Amino acid sequence: MTLEFQSLGEFSPPTRLLLGPGPSNLHPRVVRALSAPILGYLDPYFLTLLDETMELLRAVFRTSNHLTFPLSGPGTAGMEASLANIVEAGNRVAVGVNGLFGQRIAEIVRRHGGECIEIAAEWGSPIDPSQVEEVLKTRAPIKAVALIHGETSTGVLQPLSEIGRLCREHQALFIVDTVTSLSGAAVEVDSWHIDVCYSGTQKCLNAPPGLSPLTLSDQALEVVKTRRSHCGIWYLDLKLIEQYWSRGRVYHHTPPTLLIYALREALRVILEEGLENRFERHRRAALALYSGLTSLGFELHVLSPYRLPSLTTVKIPAGLDEAKSRQTLLEQHNIEIGAGLGPLRGKVWRIGLMGQNAALPIVLTLLTALEQILRAQGRLEKPGISLQAAQKAFLEG
Amino acid sequence: MTLEFQSLGEFSPPTRLLLGPGPSNLHPRVVRALSAPILGYLDPYFLTLLDETMELLRAVFRTSNHLTFPLSGPGTAGMEASLANIVEAGNRVAVGVNGLFGQRIAEIVRRHGGECIEIAAEWGSPIDPSQVEEVLKTRAPIKAVALIHGETSTGVLQPLSEIGRLCREHQALFIVDTVTSLSGAAVEVDSWHIDVCYSGTQKCLNAPPGLSPLTLSDQALEVVKTRRSHCGIWYLDLKLIEQYWSRGRVYHHTPPTLLIYALREALRVILEEGLENRFERHRRAALALYSGLTSLGFELHVLSPYRLPSLTTVKIPAGLDEAKSRQTLLEQHNIEIGAGLGPLRGKVWRIGLMGQNAALPIVLTLLTALEQILRAQGRLEKPGISLQAAQKAFLEG
Repeated sequence: MTLEFQSLGEFSPPTRLLLGPGPSNLHPRVVRALSAPILGYLDPYFLTLLDETMELLRAVFRTSNHLTFPLSGPGTAGMEASLANIVEAGNRVAVGVNGLFGQRIAEIVRRHGGECIEIAAEWGSPIDPSQVEEVLKTRAPIKAVALIHGETSTGVLQPLSEIGRLCREHQALFIVDTVTSLSGAAVEVDSWHIDVCYSGTQKCLNAPPGLSPLTLSDQALEVVKTRRSHCGIWYLDLKLIEQYWSRGRVYHHTPPTLLIYALREALRVILEEGLENRFERHRRAALALYSGLTSLGFELHVLSPYRLPSLTTVKIPAGLDEAKSRQTLLEQHNIEIGAGLGPLRGKVWRIGLMGQNAALPIVLTLLTALEQILRAQGRLEKPGISLQAAQKAFLEG
Repeated sequence: MTLEFQSLGEFSPPTRLLLGPGPSNLHPRVVRALSAPILGYLDPYFLTLLDETMELLRAVFRTSNHLTFPLSGPGTAGMEASLANIVEAGNRVAVGVNGLFGQRIAEIVRRHGGECIEIAAEWGSPIDPSQVEEVLKTRAPIKAVALIHGETSTGVLQPLSEIGRLCREHQALFIVDTVTSLSGAAVEVDSWHIDVCYSGTQKCLNAPPGLSPLTLSDQALEVVKTRRSHCGIWYLDLKLIEQYWSRGRVYHHTPPTLLIYALREALRVILEEGLENRFERHRRAALALYSGLTSLGFELHVLSPYRLPSLTTVKIPAGLDEAKSRQTLLEQHNIEIGAGLGPLRGKVWRIGLMGQNAALPIVLTLLTALEQILRAQGRLEKPGISLQAAQKAFLEG
């Protein structure tokens, strides 16, 4: 074993502009919040912080659900907690599969003994509500319908309100992944009849990764509490965790204190701006990006109106070395964008404009770098064309 | 729904001296590390950081195991990952139960379908190796033996080397919880034949909570990879997670970037001091605490040589209002100590001297505050007696 720790210095990474699928850059106030003095998990000041964070999260989720809190783990933990606590062996769950994260839900449902009915669509198209209705009608009883609101692998924004209504009508719980959409596009937990909704902190919330904001309707919580078998995961057992967050402050595990500090500050920043303002900012920044990219000859992968403002998939033009171009963006311009996944590998880029990065100057920074790369390859004749197009689209909204 | 976020200010908690069961206070360099620029999880700088963190953890665990990394979750997640990945339905697992965390292991083993053979001892005594040997001989085949090295609920330090040898002899995997002991007392993963060892970051490592350092022997990893059934938890499936940490950097979940920055710095601080120096510092600080407490008439709950230096349980004298005294310590002196758990509730305090808090000035600070509380209740005649005793014990070592 070679120990070279003596030669390791302080970690001093470059400052990247994070325009990939997440994490996004942190708000400066969020960074500062991380340096507040650490507290024990039963300290009265910490317990007040928990209550405040729950209340702030309710506002962002637009819900009055009491059990609304940040689960100790990233979005993937939120996903598994949402499924493992609801699904019992043999339960039938309808899952929308039109990207990597839908696939992941299906896999997790099966791992917890559920019977998974996949409702498929192309990677880049939304799930058709009429297909969900068909499954609800013909394959009853359906315990739950699970969908991805913002598919990070494809850039699709899934319409939810009609499906929420159908779930209510057919007494199926509605489970929704808002990891990449929360605070970047409208999420209406209560009025869309969502029973279980989870998100991540490192996307549009601009907080560090490691927490999964989660909310459960009273009906969903009742299902969790009255299930016949134990939840398959002790660490993510919401029946136990709820006793810390909602009631007697019963110790279950040590929560990631500092990440909750950071989340609270991120939520304050968001609500000070106002959710509607924030959605509008994401929408306009995305329009600027679309326009800038198309002016350079790129084609968007997802059709309007199903584009997720916070994550855009754009097709790689023939002849462009996508990996090398991404590498140049990272190494020479300190800008990270994401590669395609699964069937979209090598075919698209994934460009995130999340939270504070949903802004015209950020879009212009990216387009400038892209223009330089295209120009160096002799693929661009009129420099500045994309900047002009982006600004115009932004102003016209 | 009442939204009062407009009136919420920046979170500004008091600065506490954390002498409870954890979290402990952070090293200033660790706090600073949290403010380094955030990176994507496939950024070359971040991947180098991961390799460095793995190497530093190997040094602290004293192992050459390749799969040695911080799992994305607190110690409880490390505990469940260690069990859920090894245990398959019907497997027989021997579990030492002499405190809350042994009980928790037993519960998790059962939840994952294992047959749990409990080896019990009093809350305050270690598990007897001869009882482990008896179980290994008479109840074969035993898939694994699971023990707590430092029981945070009782303050017992469990001797491990003999039991490790027995496990090897009987071909049982040896799973050990070092959440409260790692870097505060000797942990020798390789020479004690430990196959799966997990810890927490918020105790003697002085890093924020939210990660569980974990190491698996090649033999344990082989068991994980060749098990017949899937691990019951997708999020903690080490067969999948290993593909990110050890091999192709295959995306599984977004790791808590900043907590890994903090851990790397905490490990650098630890190895700069040197593990042996650190163990000795914990030992001497604990001696000072023991001596100071006994000079005030307190009695220690655990007998020598089974005392965990990083966490001391001390009996509450008759007539002392333990809850009120703890509250005074917190509110008037900004010092947190822990209450008793389970059968020890109301009977002991749990005092942690973890990492940088294992120091004479910290012990004197606590004793001074305790003396003031006892004096106000008319229970102390000679002020300063415990300070003198503590210093003497510290110097004599």
